[in-house]
Amino acid sequence: MSHSTPYQVRTAVPGPRAAGQGTSADAFRKAAGLVDAKTIGLDDALRRVTGAQLGELLLPRFGPPEPGRGRRPLLTRGVPAAPGAATGTAVFDPVAAVDQAAAGERVVLIRARTTAADLPGILVADAVVITGADRLAGSAAALARGLGTPCVAGAADLRIDPAARRALLPDGRVLVEGDQVSVDGGTGELRLGAEPLAPSPVAHYLATGETHPADVPLVSAVSQLLTHADRVRRLGVRADADTAAEARQARLLGADGVGLCRTERAFRGPARTLVEEAVLAGSDEARRRALAELLPVQRAQLAGVLGEMDRRPVAVRLFDAPLGRFLPDRTALAVHLATLAAAGSPQDPHEVAQLAAADRVHEHNPMLGLRGARLALTWPELLEVQVRALAGAVAECRAAGGEPRPELLVPLVASSVETELIRDRVRRILDATAGESGGTVDLRIGAVLELPRATVTADRIAGTADFFAFGTDDLTQTVWGLSREDAEAGILPEYLERGILAASPFESLDGAGVGHLISRALRAARRVDPGLRAGVYGSHGSDAASIRFFHTTGVDHVSCRPQRVPVARLEAGRAALGHLD
Amino acid sequence: MSHSTPYQVRTAVPGPRAAGQGTSADAFRKAAGLVDAKTIGLDDALRRVTGAQLGELLLPRFGPPEPGRGRRPLLTRGVPAAPGAATGTAVFDPVAAVDQAAAGERVVLIRARTTAADLPGILVADAVVITGADRLAGSAAALARGLGTPCVAGAADLRIDPAARRALLPDGRVLVEGDQVSVDGGTGELRLGAEPLAPSPVAHYLATGETHPADVPLVSAVSQLLTHADRVRRLGVRADADTAAEARQARLLGADGVGLCRTERAFRGPARTLVEEAVLAGSDEARRRALAELLPVQRAQLAGVLGEMDRRPVAVRLFDAPLGRFLPDRTALAVHLATLAAAGSPQDPHEVAQLAAADRVHEHNPMLGLRGARLALTWPELLEVQVRALAGAVAECRAAGGEPRPELLVPLVASSVETELIRDRVRRILDATAGESGGTVDLRIGAVLELPRATVTADRIAGTADFFAFGTDDLTQTVWGLSREDAEAGILPEYLERGILAASPFESLDGAGVGHLISRALRAARRVDPGLRAGVYGSHGSDAASIRFFHTTGVDHVSCRPQRVPVARLEAGRAALGHLD
Repeated sequence: MSHSTPYQVRTAVPGPRAAGQGTSADAFRKAAGLVDAKTIGLDDALRRVTGAQLGELLLPRFGPPEPGRGRRPLLTRGVPAAPGAATGTAVFDPVAAVDQAAAGERVVLIRARTTAADLPGILVADAVVITGADRLAGSAAALARGLGTPCVAGAADLRIDPAARRALLPDGRVLVEGDQVSVDGGTGELRLGAEPLAPSPVAHYLATGETHPADVPLVSAVSQLLTHADRVRRLGVRADADTAAEARQARLLGADGVGLCRTERAFRGPARTLVEEAVLAGSDEARRRALAELLPVQRAQLAGVLGEMDRRPVAVRLFDAPLGRFLPDRTALAVHLATLAAAGSPQDPHEVAQLAAADRVHEHNPMLGLRGARLALTWPELLEVQVRALAGAVAECRAAGGEPRPELLVPLVASSVETELIRDRVRRILDATAGESGGTVDLRIGAVLELPRATVTADRIAGTADFFAFGTDDLTQTVWGLSREDAEAGILPEYLERGILAASPFESLDGAGVGHLISRALRAARRVDPGLRAGVYGSHGSDAASIRFFHTTGVDHVSCRPQRVPVARLEAGRAALGHLD
Repeated sequence: MSHSTPYQVRTAVPGPRAAGQGTSADAFRKAAGLVDAKTIGLDDALRRVTGAQLGELLLPRFGPPEPGRGRRPLLTRGVPAAPGAATGTAVFDPVAAVDQAAAGERVVLIRARTTAADLPGILVADAVVITGADRLAGSAAALARGLGTPCVAGAADLRIDPAARRALLPDGRVLVEGDQVSVDGGTGELRLGAEPLAPSPVAHYLATGETHPADVPLVSAVSQLLTHADRVRRLGVRADADTAAEARQARLLGADGVGLCRTERAFRGPARTLVEEAVLAGSDEARRRALAELLPVQRAQLAGVLGEMDRRPVAVRLFDAPLGRFLPDRTALAVHLATLAAAGSPQDPHEVAQLAAADRVHEHNPMLGLRGARLALTWPELLEVQVRALAGAVAECRAAGGEPRPELLVPLVASSVETELIRDRVRRILDATAGESGGTVDLRIGAVLELPRATVTADRIAGTADFFAFGTDDLTQTVWGLSREDAEAGILPEYLERGILAASPFESLDGAGVGHLISRALRAARRVDPGLRAGVYGSHGSDAASIRFFHTTGVDHVSCRPQRVPVARLEAGRAALGHLD
């Protein structure tokens, strides 16, 4: 890959370094100080700080010790391998970590050696502690940094006994699975008990405008450089936001809008069954009834996000999940029902129907299956519900005095025929419901380019879409032929470890492959429509090297997780200055 | 798509037409007659016939009636919708068709209306009969033509009673599920009972050099035009051959070599368990023992194919199947074991180990998972077994006086680092085993370009590979983000039916997407290595429009199923003449 990243994978754990937040804070204070002293200008100051440093300054940390109590006892100190602080239950096994995280526990995964089998555990852990310091530990630490998960490596004092689910310390103390522990990945500390966590002063200031007098120099340095980054950056910075709370957080952290609102996320938790009912429905009438129940839930989600992001663009993406995601796990359900049958116990007819539906919608490769534009075209009633929900949400916001600015994203487009047909249908649905939704909705409809074919035929698609969005996660998956879900627990760590890859293409944009297709697509599309606007969403939206690439390529905005918005703003400003490290 | 195909999808069943083989035979005889009369030259004659016509002339047909018996009774006559003849068991339900085909039955699927749910049945049927004649029937017929499966549509006389698993005829006769029937898709006939099948005179002549006097005019016309096609064509025509029998058939039908020999196919049937044992092995020692058992089986496969294709190139592809394919179905096994447990019956420890392994190697998207180059790099012992088997097969052929010409295909390459590493390892294994395999093996190592990233970085990969092969099936899957296995039973028929697609990209190469990437890759690679040779394998290898595209693009050879080799030779000749319809 042609781009490096500050979260580069190292082949071994780095040696001990100064606490992350300290160094990063110094960089900001020093740069701002030189500006105050008129030694350098703001551009130069911005060049001297990085998004990675700001990212560290935004991570939560341990709050002041509780009065009269002091810090929790130190168990050991290892190598600070990924910054941030977290508390949780000590777990010595990745499978247990996954189970406990699924049950809502905060989990600290503690391992002697990490292999591919640990990856699912690392993905769900709130912090990771590794006693080894080899190349495998280095890969795991790199992954943790990419995930924003605190990690301590080389904690060699801990002698883990996995069978007994405990760890021994040289002084005779014993850490037992289930104990509460606290990890500071910036200092390398592992403590017994739950330290109180606090937002960092910078995060607190950005979210509230308030700060402690002692933090004023740091906070104003960050604020000064972020403001300058906003002044010089050409790239818009939006956030992924599926809920009003996320949209609010994004707005407070300076997002220019929402780059990705996932409509299917309105149906997580108990609301999942609403989609399940529509899939299970045995008759047209039952399906219509089930779809009608989706509408208010979808509308409430969209009204919440549009309301919080008032007067700023909100890109709402049509349903993009395989339908199997809304049904119980097929294998587990088959086993459950077979067990009942074998025991002669009665089977729940609803579960029998669920299994039949799960079999029906089962796909060998759901990543390459029925979702996005394909779902909208083959299940037009679902598209109608979604568009009507959006129109209703707009009406609701307007009635409350707002000026909502929705955009519609059509995902998984492979051919311009798809965008053309969906655009026609959406316009017709909007026309038909103009009366009930309180006026016309001026909806710009964008094509999501996340399949190689869409990038190669971008000139044709440009003629059928109002704007483009590149979905870089899925585009990376199809360009590489690599299922992220499978690869992050298998081939990727192996490839990183063996040096076949220098960095995960899911963390830093693969310039030679994915990036090449994006820049060709943009050039071709703008020959047809010179004013065509294009955004990006995906894990790359706040990665420094990727942002530099998007800036250079002529992308108009990136979108990232709300808490990463300040990082993306800073890096977008740095990218605009050029001549970077 | 920019290319049309003779097997284009029609939106409704075509009206009755003259029997396929008759018309096609006329075309060949007439063209050859005009040459004999010196009215036209051979080039013109070749332009007047098509691969689709030759394909029809190669299909089996009903042999002469058995003496004193006559034809089996005619049940009904419908629209000839896909040529060819077949016999089999009448089945009225796609699920039953799949079950019976899996049990080794020849199946004739008979349906009133076909929907997406019928697709799995159509894929396994030996013939298809549809009573309706609507657009859905048209899609099904197009699919059958693409598969080379005889199909009769519009057989409106049959009144199917699916619940009773039978069909009624106007004259009171009843066709019951399980009855033997015979279908001629070229005449539209459905008969009760199994007609004897015979190879067509043309197929018989090409395979044996013999012919019946009455067939001489046709057979010599075909032969004359095929010989001319061979003279003018620039594209090599190889065949996919996994067994000695397939290689032999391919050679008799004029293949220039083997374009694809799938090493994993040596482990179908009972030999599957050999791979399973290697996957299940609990210790390094057990794994080494299991891998050692793979070697003779692999060597025998390769020696068989190399022996039959002596002195012609044989491209052997490294293991390219997800490991889960070599284990029993995970859900079925889980259900089976849970049922035993619930009934208090003892579980077979081997089955318990199988399930554990199936869980371990399970992938959410196996299409985008651990296979090809990735498997070779992460399981180097398997690569070693394969290379040693190939070296052994070469030694075996040489000892028998042959001149084997193996080539090695490295599938699923995403980055030049992969081919470079694998090439190094293969060379080292060959050097280390030169003694035992009886001399050096001069093995050219090619990269299979079947991921978009490989096509985009073809210039880099060209520096690490001796030649290229484009795997157009997988490239179509990743470029479109479309799992063929899932799509052919779901979204593709829906898209064809709604007119969103004009043809399946798996039948005729998608010029604007997949084709564009292939031609760019070739141009870029040949700037680095002007002499670089490139082949193609996949379903497109004998499709006329695709062959025209490959010819124009500068591909060196195509590979197709052995029985389609004459079709590909003819079309490659026609492509070389240019100015085609």
